[in-house]
Amino acid sequence: MAIAYPHYLTSKNEPKSVDPLMVSPQPSPSSRGGVCLSQDELKKIAAYKAVEFVQSGMVLGLGTGSTAKHAVDRIGELLKQGKLKNIVGIPTSEITRNQAEKLGIPLSDLDDHPILDLAIDGADEVDPDMNLVKGRGGSLLREKMVEAACKKFIVIVDESKLVSHIGGSGLAMPVEIVPFCWKFTLKRLEMLFMEAGCVGKLRRFEGSGDPFVTDNKNYIIDLYFDKEIGDLKAASDAILRLAGVVEHGMFLDMATTLIVASKNGVSFTNKLT
Amino acid sequence: MAIAYPHYLTSKNEPKSVDPLMVSPQPSPSSRGGVCLSQDELKKIAAYKAVEFVQSGMVLGLGTGSTAKHAVDRIGELLKQGKLKNIVGIPTSEITRNQAEKLGIPLSDLDDHPILDLAIDGADEVDPDMNLVKGRGGSLLREKMVEAACKKFIVIVDESKLVSHIGGSGLAMPVEIVPFCWKFTLKRLEMLFMEAGCVGKLRRFEGSGDPFVTDNKNYIIDLYFDKEIGDLKAASDAILRLAGVVEHGMFLDMATTLIVASKNGVSFTNKLT
Repeated sequence: MAIAYPHYLTSKNEPKSVDPLMVSPQPSPSSRGGVCLSQDELKKIAAYKAVEFVQSGMVLGLGTGSTAKHAVDRIGELLKQGKLKNIVGIPTSEITRNQAEKLGIPLSDLDDHPILDLAIDGADEVDPDMNLVKGRGGSLLREKMVEAACKKFIVIVDESKLVSHIGGSGLAMPVEIVPFCWKFTLKRLEMLFMEAGCVGKLRRFEGSGDPFVTDNKNYIIDLYFDKEIGDLKAASDAILRLAGVVEHGMFLDMATTLIVASKNGVSFTNKLT
Repeated sequence: MAIAYPHYLTSKNEPKSVDPLMVSPQPSPSSRGGVCLSQDELKKIAAYKAVEFVQSGMVLGLGTGSTAKHAVDRIGELLKQGKLKNIVGIPTSEITRNQAEKLGIPLSDLDDHPILDLAIDGADEVDPDMNLVKGRGGSLLREKMVEAACKKFIVIVDESKLVSHIGGSGLAMPVEIVPFCWKFTLKRLEMLFMEAGCVGKLRRFEGSGDPFVTDNKNYIIDLYFDKEIGDLKAASDAILRLAGVVEHGMFLDMATTLIVASKNGVSFTNKLT
């Protein structure tokens, strides 16, 4: 039975730097017998596949979000079963820290473990060059600090996260900023991407309407684009040069492996370095 | 009587982009009769000269530090005397906000006044191209936000602040970082400038030894260099690309006028744009 590639691997913008031969040789459970899996089940499949790369003794970056949560659960399960030993987890948020503590995963931080073997995390968007948008969960800064310190970084997504270009989902690209004069910083961000029809919105808590506050006591501006923003590295530097910006949600040239779960199967793609 | 130029204007590294004809045509009080002025008196002279550029109706950036304090005092004085009217001040720190409020200077912020006419502020180092190091007082982020929004930015210093290159004073170049895993960020900053013999130190309160906390609830890493760090714009981008860094104390291509008070007189230098 042939595996249908997700559009990511067959799009016109075929990635120059990925190895499509790494596609899973076996059909995944999702395509067996025409069972229709939910998005959450697809996330779980991608997460479990990623955890197969975890070995005893590793220092692991533990991601944040609905997909990464499944990976953390699975690591906890394998530790309890004795199938994994001597794992040290570095959580990327307070939420993940709480989850991992409950599961009994031994934890540490970047101060004590400045080099990690592997991180597993989800993403909000993945473009054909494996550039990511992350941080819709609000943990982009800690995620970037941890994942930039990893030898390998496996990104796990369901197929809905694959986009032709960053911003292409129509959903937000988050920017973490200091609260001081946030309206001013919002306007400067919009002006930076005026040609892409950029609109920025302060992220707020749904109930109270108060500004959403990150683990680092900062605010999030969600940027929405009408068009492509062009050269991503130039865009990244331009955002970071704005005084008042702490970090943004574009993760460029960081992912080393992509695992995509779709209703047609699971695909693995390694970035060639 | 001839004015002796400070070494800044006569050094071998003569600035390419400044107009040395703007030197004050009159000897300043500091050179009359061989009176030896203190460093604080020199700072005051530079500050008062800068305030001569302030006109009624201006939106003004109010700097922070021992030199800028004199300028804020002088603006308050001229407002009380009725010689200045309709000034709106944008303070660059909580300390300056308190000072200006006591002086009765009407205040606002960048959200309501995103474009400023003029800012006046001191600096910790000034290189021959009018690049600055600022933030030894800990207010570098707000200073940079305000001063990047100004049409004109007058820097006021005594001659001890003039250096042949950034870092040349042997004193700190501050970097504001998020508190999360600060030791890790400190190490990454040191590694970035390993060839310049960089050593980083967490800034602490003198009395308690607790980490110094900025107005934005962040920490400061003070960087010390043995050698020149080379291309400043490249260095700036490299620092800003580190996740965990909020801002740094290099103010590149921002000053439009430099006023230097020395025992030999006051010099004005306009940056040609």
